[in-house]
Amino acid sequence: MHEFRYLRNNLFCERVKVEDLAKRWGTPLYVYSYKTLLDHYWKLKNAFREINPLICYSVKANSNLSILKILVEQGAGLDIVSGGELFRAIKVKCPPKRIVYASVGKTEREIETAIRQGILFFNVESVSELENINRIAERLGKKTNVSLRINPDVEPQTHRFITTGKLTNKFGLDFQTAEEILKKREKYLWLKIKGLHIHIGSQIIESSPFVSAIRKLVSFHRQMKEEGIDLEYLNIGGGLGIIYYKEKPQTAKEFALCVIPILKETQAKVILEPGRFIAGPSGILVVKVLYIKSTPSKNFIIVDGAMNDLIRPALYGAYHEILPVTKFQNQKSKIKNQKYDIVGPICESGDFFAKDREISPLREGDYLAIMGAGAYGFSMSSNYNSRCRVAEVLVKDDKAYLIRRRETYRDLVRNEVVIDKF
Amino acid sequence: MHEFRYLRNNLFCERVKVEDLAKRWGTPLYVYSYKTLLDHYWKLKNAFREINPLICYSVKANSNLSILKILVEQGAGLDIVSGGELFRAIKVKCPPKRIVYASVGKTEREIETAIRQGILFFNVESVSELENINRIAERLGKKTNVSLRINPDVEPQTHRFITTGKLTNKFGLDFQTAEEILKKREKYLWLKIKGLHIHIGSQIIESSPFVSAIRKLVSFHRQMKEEGIDLEYLNIGGGLGIIYYKEKPQTAKEFALCVIPILKETQAKVILEPGRFIAGPSGILVVKVLYIKSTPSKNFIIVDGAMNDLIRPALYGAYHEILPVTKFQNQKSKIKNQKYDIVGPICESGDFFAKDREISPLREGDYLAIMGAGAYGFSMSSNYNSRCRVAEVLVKDDKAYLIRRRETYRDLVRNEVVIDKF
Repeated sequence: MHEFRYLRNNLFCERVKVEDLAKRWGTPLYVYSYKTLLDHYWKLKNAFREINPLICYSVKANSNLSILKILVEQGAGLDIVSGGELFRAIKVKCPPKRIVYASVGKTEREIETAIRQGILFFNVESVSELENINRIAERLGKKTNVSLRINPDVEPQTHRFITTGKLTNKFGLDFQTAEEILKKREKYLWLKIKGLHIHIGSQIIESSPFVSAIRKLVSFHRQMKEEGIDLEYLNIGGGLGIIYYKEKPQTAKEFALCVIPILKETQAKVILEPGRFIAGPSGILVVKVLYIKSTPSKNFIIVDGAMNDLIRPALYGAYHEILPVTKFQNQKSKIKNQKYDIVGPICESGDFFAKDREISPLREGDYLAIMGAGAYGFSMSSNYNSRCRVAEVLVKDDKAYLIRRRETYRDLVRNEVVIDKF
Repeated sequence: MHEFRYLRNNLFCERVKVEDLAKRWGTPLYVYSYKTLLDHYWKLKNAFREINPLICYSVKANSNLSILKILVEQGAGLDIVSGGELFRAIKVKCPPKRIVYASVGKTEREIETAIRQGILFFNVESVSELENINRIAERLGKKTNVSLRINPDVEPQTHRFITTGKLTNKFGLDFQTAEEILKKREKYLWLKIKGLHIHIGSQIIESSPFVSAIRKLVSFHRQMKEEGIDLEYLNIGGGLGIIYYKEKPQTAKEFALCVIPILKETQAKVILEPGRFIAGPSGILVVKVLYIKSTPSKNFIIVDGAMNDLIRPALYGAYHEILPVTKFQNQKSKIKNQKYDIVGPICESGDFFAKDREISPLREGDYLAIMGAGAYGFSMSSNYNSRCRVAEVLVKDDKAYLIRRRETYRDLVRNEVVIDKF
């Protein structure tokens, strides 16, 4: 469910015509719906009400400051993975005790800043890292909370790039190593091990891999308790799938019903780290049709957006629904429900948004909406082919707010230094 | 052949120790060799001396202004694909008559600017675009040169994303359409059709697909001449493969020997568009080992560079050689010629530089050089995971020049607008 709907053949974001936004701010343009964002946050919050978890929004999905601010103001915490994301979290005044920090490669400087800020805890991914954080905490003279990220070795049935809970992945600690750490925890004088963390992957549409991972986590938690090690937090990560095509992902409620009974018995505080679930359905990428091109073997719709703006189709083979921003009736058009590749201007064949897609009649100059582009859209975008990164607009009710200015050519070379003579 | 060599167990770029660069400017860091850059330009230039082609360096491979400037000063032209690349070309004072502009999706504004600048010609990719350029040229009252990009329908045996000369790709015009255009060329009052262009793909290691495409091009050129249509330029594109692993790509000389005889008979002026061939071997990405992690099923070397800095392994499954910046002898190390996945800190499994790679002993804190990263390295980089884009350094002989400053956290949010109240 989202707030992008047709009214008299015009696509609206809440109460604003998408076409008006495209004309006002140009294309390509990311457009987000405030209400959709909030709805998804509250869907999850409400579904889990019984155990009142801390919902740490996963910043990497969409890290725009305004989006973070909106969620933080609703009470969300933030799940960060870098110093840059910590900078953002501070910038939007997220209370440090609502920040959790995961990443297999935290640097010295990143760890130091996070300790100084007093975040809730680090999700620690290796023994080396644990030792490193302990050393830095000692140097700063500041006792620091950590949680152990466990790799539960489950198969989440998603794209191999976004599987993160199998033992062949780089993430987390196996149970045995975690146990060894916990039993020798006095060794880490400057650390308090406060919880356990899992995150098994992304865009997972069934509850069963979650259930199986959480069962393992809870059983380990119980085992530790029996040995006198009480862990206050269970962080079950994110990864809830959304609808891109014909997926039928578990709803927040279904998910909650499956996992709350397992979690409740532990009496631990629960943390969730949704990213895509909240931001994904809340955004679209609006592009303009530049050229319609028919060749002997294929037909192409060439739009002004490209893989540098949204890399998911190229990188993950991801499907995005593509809708006309204005539906034309009985229109004289170069095309009529034919199959088209919808591609961008970048000079490689990986630059496409859809292959062999059936699409209703349209003309050069028309706008298309690439749906479900709110997560891993702008946040993965680049300047490839020296293309300026696009603007972002957020709509609330009948008002639209520019939340990121379009880059200019000057931005492209801002940090470059031209050497006059070598 | 490149200028990255070991001297007493230390990797040097020309006469500068790579370790010193890493310590001075931090990591991750792109390091380029001036001499390697020039050598490759001149290798091609010399191999083709007999027909004295215009070599238009393909800006998208590595668009740093200093690199463009160096090549332009040697006499190179530039092959551009966007308004942003045109901006760069102008910035380094490339004479407009050495600029050629290809792209399936040139926008109105981009076309207008390029016409005003008086570039050598557009490589036109569709009938719609041809009509569009004609219309804009008319509006500006400025007769404009174009060349027709032909899709010769050959299979270059490379990654499917960088195949660009098959009829199922979005690029160019089929021969029949090109013929129709040429026969009705008076229709395009504001255009002069000056040449033909092909570009069949990238990282092609054998001459045969080039030969087969160029034969088709030349035969079409002859056919047109017989019909009284003389086309002054033949642009044979780029795509020359380089050595990433054990490839044995054709040398510039071998390539020239194969294609010069075919091209010569046409008496046309020849244009080449090499990108990777020039920039690829000239650059490395230097990263630091953050953590060494052994798990029951795999061993990982976690470095501070990531897929946002160099996306080729994730996007194309590309192989890059990875060398220690300092070779240690008989060193006590956590690892000893074991197989490792070399991965970055980004929170997805697609973030890797190498899988199951055998690597000589090293320790946390050591530096690694990811070789052959001069092309499609920085130019494809992003801020994913709110990571700052890295610095670039160019070495000439015993001197190093910073040619791009490392981004700061402030750069990450520069264009964002935080709305106080929605």
